[in-house]
Amino acid sequence: MACRQALLEAQGDIEKALELLRQQSLLVAQKKTERAVSQGIIEAYIHGGGRIGAMVEVNCESDFAARTSEFQELAHHLAMQVVAMCPQVISKEEAPEMSEADLQTACLLLQPYIKDPSRTVQEIITETIAKIGENIRISRFARFELGG
Amino acid sequence: MACRQALLEAQGDIEKALELLRQQSLLVAQKKTERAVSQGIIEAYIHGGGRIGAMVEVNCESDFAARTSEFQELAHHLAMQVVAMCPQVISKEEAPEMSEADLQTACLLLQPYIKDPSRTVQEIITETIAKIGENIRISRFARFELGG
Repeated sequence: MACRQALLEAQGDIEKALELLRQQSLLVAQKKTERAVSQGIIEAYIHGGGRIGAMVEVNCESDFAARTSEFQELAHHLAMQVVAMCPQVISKEEAPEMSEADLQTACLLLQPYIKDPSRTVQEIITETIAKIGENIRISRFARFELGG
Repeated sequence: MACRQALLEAQGDIEKALELLRQQSLLVAQKKTERAVSQGIIEAYIHGGGRIGAMVEVNCESDFAARTSEFQELAHHLAMQVVAMCPQVISKEEAPEMSEADLQTACLLLQPYIKDPSRTVQEIITETIAKIGENIRISRFARFELGG
């Protein structure tokens, strides 16, 4: 959908047109989630002078995209998210026995994003897919807490 | 054993006296390996611009010792060791079916230390126990390699 078409559909309402474009880019992003990811980054974050640490592998399609600031920031914030929010699994498919309420605490993709708690981690990833134009996947994470 | 006694036993040979003292401090260190460790540090090391990462939990007895440069350097080098040398387990007790030769590759404590390959990781840990005067234990590690 082109900008012009969005404006036509929104009958000249700029806000509405922007919302239509945003929806459209998310639809395109969702289509990309089928694509293979073999590049990416390993990122770690250590908190409290070494009391808690997290490491994540975040993948995308090309080394070029892996080097963008958008992708690297996402990986960094995801490592911080794991430290702060103690997820147990990445996606709800890993915990089919869990209730929806428990999943929102335990599942990384369903957790409120620490940098913007009004949105989930999954929503932030979908937005970053739209921004960099490549599929993104969190492949694994580890979280160590001292004596934990 | 005091320095004076070591010198007497070595009959004035300084080199021999130092070796006796070193052996003695290692014996003291070995006795400390029974003591409980609940403090320490989580340390991470990322290599190759994010292609490989390692995280380790290294424990000691007091927060004071955990903040010493000797202990923090050890933790840092152990994270580098895990990145470089791909251990599968920490101690040989975790892999009772493995041959001695395989253990020297797979077992972190039996690997040659990357900063001084003439000694094992276990020997370096025992020396650091002697230096800081507290028991030290590697509790866990994780190693992520891109697409691995």
